[in-house]
Amino acid sequence: MISFDEPVMTDTSLGKQMHSLATMMFPICRSITGNGVRQTLNILKEEIPLVIYEVPSGTKVFDWEVPKEWNIREAYIKNSTGEKIVDFKNCNLHVLNYSTPINKKISLEELKKHLSSLPDHPDWIPYRTSYYKENWGFCLTHRQFQNLEDGEYEVEIDSTLEEGSLTYGECLVPGRRDEQVLISCHACHPSLCNDNLSGVVLALKLAQTLRTHTLEYSYRFLFIPGAIGSITWLNRNQDQAKKIVNGLVLACLGDSGKSTYKKSRRGNAEIDRAAEHVLKHSKSEYDILEFSPYGYDERQFCSPGFNLPVGCFMRTPFAKFPEYHTDADNLNFVRPEFLADSFDKCIEIVNILENNKTYINLNPMCEPQLGKRGLYRNIGGDSAENVSELGLLWVLNQSDGSHSLLDIAEKSGIVFQVLSKAAGSLVEHGLLKEVEYGQ
Amino acid sequence: MISFDEPVMTDTSLGKQMHSLATMMFPICRSITGNGVRQTLNILKEEIPLVIYEVPSGTKVFDWEVPKEWNIREAYIKNSTGEKIVDFKNCNLHVLNYSTPINKKISLEELKKHLSSLPDHPDWIPYRTSYYKENWGFCLTHRQFQNLEDGEYEVEIDSTLEEGSLTYGECLVPGRRDEQVLISCHACHPSLCNDNLSGVVLALKLAQTLRTHTLEYSYRFLFIPGAIGSITWLNRNQDQAKKIVNGLVLACLGDSGKSTYKKSRRGNAEIDRAAEHVLKHSKSEYDILEFSPYGYDERQFCSPGFNLPVGCFMRTPFAKFPEYHTDADNLNFVRPEFLADSFDKCIEIVNILENNKTYINLNPMCEPQLGKRGLYRNIGGDSAENVSELGLLWVLNQSDGSHSLLDIAEKSGIVFQVLSKAAGSLVEHGLLKEVEYGQ
Amino acid sequence: MISFDEPVMTDTSLGKQMHSLATMMFPICRSITGNGVRQTLNILKEEIPLVIYEVPSGTKVFDWEVPKEWNIREAYIKNSTGEKIVDFKNCNLHVLNYSTPINKKISLEELKKHLSSLPDHPDWIPYRTSYYKENWGFCLTHRQFQNLEDGEYEVEIDSTLEEGSLTYGECLVPGRRDEQVLISCHACHPSLCNDNLSGVVLALKLAQTLRTHTLEYSYRFLFIPGAIGSITWLNRNQDQAKKIVNGLVLACLGDSGKSTYKKSRRGNAEIDRAAEHVLKHSKSEYDILEFSPYGYDERQFCSPGFNLPVGCFMRTPFAKFPEYHTDADNLNFVRPEFLADSFDKCIEIVNILENNKTYINLNPMCEPQLGKRGLYRNIGGDSAENVSELGLLWVLNQSDGSHSLLDIAEKSGIVFQVLSKAAGSLVEHGLLKEVEYGQ
Repeated sequence: MISFDEPVMTDTSLGKQMHSLATMMFPICRSITGNGVRQTLNILKEEIPLVIYEVPSGTKVFDWEVPKEWNIREAYIKNSTGEKIVDFKNCNLHVLNYSTPINKKISLEELKKHLSSLPDHPDWIPYRTSYYKENWGFCLTHRQFQNLEDGEYEVEIDSTLEEGSLTYGECLVPGRRDEQVLISCHACHPSLCNDNLSGVVLALKLAQTLRTHTLEYSYRFLFIPGAIGSITWLNRNQDQAKKIVNGLVLACLGDSGKSTYKKSRRGNAEIDRAAEHVLKHSKSEYDILEFSPYGYDERQFCSPGFNLPVGCFMRTPFAKFPEYHTDADNLNFVRPEFLADSFDKCIEIVNILENNKTYINLNPMCEPQLGKRGLYRNIGGDSAENVSELGLLWVLNQSDGSHSLLDIAEKSGIVFQVLSKAAGSLVEHGLLKEVEYGQ
Repeated sequence: MISFDEPVMTDTSLGKQMHSLATMMFPICRSITGNGVRQTLNILKEEIPLVIYEVPSGTKVFDWEVPKEWNIREAYIKNSTGEKIVDFKNCNLHVLNYSTPINKKISLEELKKHLSSLPDHPDWIPYRTSYYKENWGFCLTHRQFQNLEDGEYEVEIDSTLEEGSLTYGECLVPGRRDEQVLISCHACHPSLCNDNLSGVVLALKLAQTLRTHTLEYSYRFLFIPGAIGSITWLNRNQDQAKKIVNGLVLACLGDSGKSTYKKSRRGNAEIDRAAEHVLKHSKSEYDILEFSPYGYDERQFCSPGFNLPVGCFMRTPFAKFPEYHTDADNLNFVRPEFLADSFDKCIEIVNILENNKTYINLNPMCEPQLGKRGLYRNIGGDSAENVSELGLLWVLNQSDGSHSLLDIAEKSGIVFQVLSKAAGSLVEHGLLKEVEYGQ
Repeated sequence: MISFDEPVMTDTSLGKQMHSLATMMFPICRSITGNGVRQTLNILKEEIPLVIYEVPSGTKVFDWEVPKEWNIREAYIKNSTGEKIVDFKNCNLHVLNYSTPINKKISLEELKKHLSSLPDHPDWIPYRTSYYKENWGFCLTHRQFQNLEDGEYEVEIDSTLEEGSLTYGECLVPGRRDEQVLISCHACHPSLCNDNLSGVVLALKLAQTLRTHTLEYSYRFLFIPGAIGSITWLNRNQDQAKKIVNGLVLACLGDSGKSTYKKSRRGNAEIDRAAEHVLKHSKSEYDILEFSPYGYDERQFCSPGFNLPVGCFMRTPFAKFPEYHTDADNLNFVRPEFLADSFDKCIEIVNILENNKTYINLNPMCEPQLGKRGLYRNIGGDSAENVSELGLLWVLNQSDGSHSLLDIAEKSGIVFQVLSKAAGSLVEHGLLKEVEYGQ
């Protein structure tokens, strides 16, 4: 069980470790399929026992089909003087992700139909994809776009879009119970850091940490391509999905914005309440968002046929920071201290899930005499409230078998850990008994 | 079914049509019985197939009795020089409505016991009634009142209060279902315009409009005298009343104030939620009032023995505008544009009732692939949210058979029409199925 | 039944009577056992038929044991010159309550281990107790403490802590029903006035008042030592406790602060709603506190094994006024007018409990014709709302057997008494029937 007293991973070096890992994976050109994802998962596999799955193109997964596999070696635009004015080597966002191969000389007019830029952020390169409609294109800064002169251009995209497979990684950290907590992150974006190398490295470190503890629940970590990855996983794991009793989608966790939790479709699942409790008692600002069917893979986990209790933990939500889906979402935008802060909050959420027990007061008629057990101050009449005495009294008063510690925390306004400690103390003194799981 | 795409009646001429009709009916001296109501109903009958009922005086209706029929030809007060200083011909509010006949010479002192005026509004004539206690009286401006000099006065009220009948009109616009939506308005006030010729002309135009559409529900329109009229109708139609699944009392709908909806006794009936949704998504200010057992005929429809889901739709509520029950509630106080605005909101409410269906997502495991059906943008990565895509996603996510479109509208904050359109689109593409009525 | 029309005890002399009684009992050195409590109960017994119980030391009461009985005759500290510098005779707070006997010469250093003072309030003497751990000590002003000079001191506490008994008083005021309303106050504090002679005298006057009325409920008054007293009573009266359907702990009711009601553990018991209604409709500020398992004897009454609907009525809550548990909580701190105001509110709460009936509208189809019964104004059309007509309409509309008068008061915003009067009137006219208790 995770102990409250020894915060395992809060040393500042943890943030740096996560940032280093992100730095290592940043240059790889990932997509929803292909070698970029494989390379990334192989890096993760050196840290945790990851099982890597390959699902062949064309496999039917509910209403979808696993797409052809995309790989890319080179891509550029040359101007009429033969100068490479846009080059995939400089930044892999320059290519429309999933571009079909092309090598052609075309007019500026024709070229422009295949270009994306951001007039409002003229120095940033946007990130665009075309997974499900065959197309090719380039992304460039708006300054580059505006400097394009009339003339003939050579466009070269040396990519392949062929039968292959979709790749994802899975790591199960077993606990006492067969019931599972799902931790899922998308690992399909090329050189974008907050979205979502931040989620990937945080999930990795969480898995590493939990593996060193005795756990109540089993924890399933998924490193998957967005949308099609979760659809594929759910399709292949419908029985496993039934075991998921709590879950978090991790995304955008390294920026300087406040922590944000988006509730599951159920809205009042244990994970929703645990996350809200942690954020409420954190010393910093936060946001709680109601569920909406738009966002990350919680869209799939919370589809009505599954309706899993899975929320999404972020800092600034996607599309709410201007750097979103541009090359400004880079290794400078994500800071070690924010990764570490997000990690700490995840651990606190896990702590609540692990310890959110329900107890029975074994001495329910009036209060027990705490003083004779050394649990209470000895000189009466003092007006100062002792918070941990209050914790003892709240746990005793509410433990009629129908209130979990999280219920009591919400009702009393006392932070979960204090109540959990109080409960532990009362159990030791024979005043409280856990309602056994399954009873 | 009412279509959202072609707002049938929003041309500005509609407001003018309603105002013209009100102008035509304004001079008639109506009361809860008598020829004024008959004349009024006959005018309406030229516009819609109105069935007119006559219920004899003395008929027992629950705890009440249909009163004697009142009619009036002439009424005046003459001063000692024989000058008519107050004359019913100038304004039918001058007579206490339901005054018994009188012709007598009396002193000023005696006369004053039978006069009503408004010191706070010295140029306005109040409207007073004495339906259930035989009495006679005059209403006059406070300036008139103050100018009365000592001396003898002749009072003449040429009225009759005799066995006769109570008259009301009813129009049923049939729909696919036997279940009914009740639209009721009181048509018993003399020359007062907002209260309630505004409700009468709006109900009329609503009936005319609905008659040109294929409808889900049947719509029952009542043009009745206030209180005794709804009591009489309910007494005679106890089986019909059981079919009423939604209803609106229409009153005071032509003034410049904000739209107001007063909830039914149930407080969370479909009509309550539909009206609140329409007002919330209108571009103007509005008020939602909780039910109270005071007001118009919702008092009777919502009495505990019936407890029908009937709310009251108004602009400024009765007694909240100073012109209420005075001759200042006239054809200038009521404006065509406000009548038209009230009408539009009624149509929107009806639209919700007609289209508030519950669906089942036929592809509930993960999201269906909207892109391959042309229902989704093709270039991913763009950060702009597309509202109608959101509509599709919300309908899909919530359509598990337990959420109606109005439920989804409330949860998502998206206007009903967008969701209704999205649902239509999804049904067309075989992704959604309506839960059939009665299943 | 308590009548609303003749407020029995609101004359200002009542406040003075309560203050005089407090003045009489103020000098007595009370504790949780001993002659101080006996003396106090004997004074009360002259006013109401109090039954006084003695429970022997050592009696097991749930997890606790009735302690030895404590009595004290004299106590002082003498300095090296033989001068009494702290003397129990001057103020009984000077002795740590429940001090074991001692007579010894000790150094200043040793003495200081047994002294309490208040640096923040250097002229006040604190009140301290040590009921459950044998100890001795003195309390003194901080100025006295600071003036102590090095040297030898003689400490003398002429007390006894011996087998004896715990004393408490009980008075049952019988009503029509066997179900009981509990009124409990702690009577164990020495010369402290707000905490809790205020509660004691208020409970006494309430008992006196209720004894002169015909009551629906039976009222059980407890004058007990805090904590151990309620634990002892509950232990000995487990069957009686089952009859308690509402209850108030009375404490700190004479200071100038606003009235405060702390809810029972149930949170929505009739007593909680009645108290909130009274405070909401009082003309003064007030506080409603959610239940917490800290405070007075509601801690025991609301322990999970009992979970009785017992709240706590106070003015400024304990520990929230600086005078709390010091000699500044004296006869000047408590004022007759605040005692009287607290009493009035208690009576209003009792009034609601006594009259919170549920009715059936005998004419539920439409409104009954109130006018023909003289219950309604005769000239219609007036825009002024008549509150008592509104009361009649609300009672009629909601009386379907599922709404009590308090339910209707909460829903309508109308003060309980107006509705109760309206209900009485409707019963008289045969329009309403009480749902008999037990049906």
